[in-house]
Amino acid sequence: MAYEVVLVDTWVSMFGMRVRIALAEKGIKYEYKEEDLCNKSKLLLKINPIYKKIPVLIHNGKPVCESLIIVQYIDEVWNDRSPLMPSDPYPRACARFWADFVDKRVYDVAKKVWTTKGEEQEAAKKEFIETLQILERQLGDHPYFGGERFGFVDLSLITFYSWFYAYETFGNFSIEAECPKIIAWAKRCLQKDSVANTLPDQKKVYEYVVQMRKRFGVE
Amino acid sequence: MAYEVVLVDTWVSMFGMRVRIALAEKGIKYEYKEEDLCNKSKLLLKINPIYKKIPVLIHNGKPVCESLIIVQYIDEVWNDRSPLMPSDPYPRACARFWADFVDKRVYDVAKKVWTTKGEEQEAAKKEFIETLQILERQLGDHPYFGGERFGFVDLSLITFYSWFYAYETFGNFSIEAECPKIIAWAKRCLQKDSVANTLPDQKKVYEYVVQMRKRFGVE
Repeated sequence: MAYEVVLVDTWVSMFGMRVRIALAEKGIKYEYKEEDLCNKSKLLLKINPIYKKIPVLIHNGKPVCESLIIVQYIDEVWNDRSPLMPSDPYPRACARFWADFVDKRVYDVAKKVWTTKGEEQEAAKKEFIETLQILERQLGDHPYFGGERFGFVDLSLITFYSWFYAYETFGNFSIEAECPKIIAWAKRCLQKDSVANTLPDQKKVYEYVVQMRKRFGVE
Repeated sequence: MAYEVVLVDTWVSMFGMRVRIALAEKGIKYEYKEEDLCNKSKLLLKINPIYKKIPVLIHNGKPVCESLIIVQYIDEVWNDRSPLMPSDPYPRACARFWADFVDKRVYDVAKKVWTTKGEEQEAAKKEFIETLQILERQLGDHPYFGGERFGFVDLSLITFYSWFYAYETFGNFSIEAECPKIIAWAKRCLQKDSVANTLPDQKKVYEYVVQMRKRFGVE
């Protein structure tokens, strides 16, 4: 029998990991299709003709694209267990704001930390740390961004943790020294099976980044 | 008595207009505070310290930022009338995808149409038209992006219509010649009071753009 839920994804993608954590939180069985981004499948081009990007969730044959939109979709369809979004409109708007902030501010600058050199890299490191510090202030003394429970913002950010060793090694800096509360929060998230079983080993991501740097000619 | 709902906004903003249309659709009375973006108010810096941008909705003293997040918030709080989002998760995910596409693809390239010259402007015009043509194909033969009724995607895109005359004049091209269905759809949207009463006159926006071009040194 064909799976009701299929995820087209790439193991190293922090966006794909968000969807895998959401599916794990909900206890949904699904078929995982690993996509080779250097040789995109006909399936991917068909199900995401606009961006041609992973992750794409296929549910009963219908595709959903963009990780934060997929996670909200999952939360709305399987709404009888492990809510990821707050139930009240105001905290829900705040959760959307901070997840969107992660999308707008973290990915591009983090990528610059391992794809650039010299002054450009220094500026990227500074901006990356400042961005995490804004998030750290928002977290405050709460265990999770969602307050007492793991939720939408936690899931949006924690997947970057698997890339931290690569950022630190190529950027020659310590994230824990600058943002101790973010690291404590990340370790708290990793106590959850849904997160621990999803995030790849940081050293394995580092090896992937080594290969990517060679391909991009950053040496 | 203080208003329960306050909107901090700038008349010419297509993002602010989205919120004004949503409030009009819901029939919500509110206090409108016009913000001077060249001299930002202490209020704006306080209620949106992260981006320092309009629009911000203040509801019972609590701020909500980012236009698409505000519109979803409005739809969720005043959920007893004029729904803006589809009720089922799949069309809701699709609506979020296309509104997000408008944010990612339309604003930046449209701005380049009136802030650049020569080859850069030609490239921007081409990309702007291609983007509208993708939206036109998505619209198909439906009266609205929301299908039979005006909704989230319509509201996200229609506000750009007030800038079309400026784009066309400075870009020296006709949007209607390239995207006739988008223009027909825009005229359909303008038959709604919520849209007609919100969108400023295209010539007034053009005069504003003339001033902006002087300030940016584009002559």
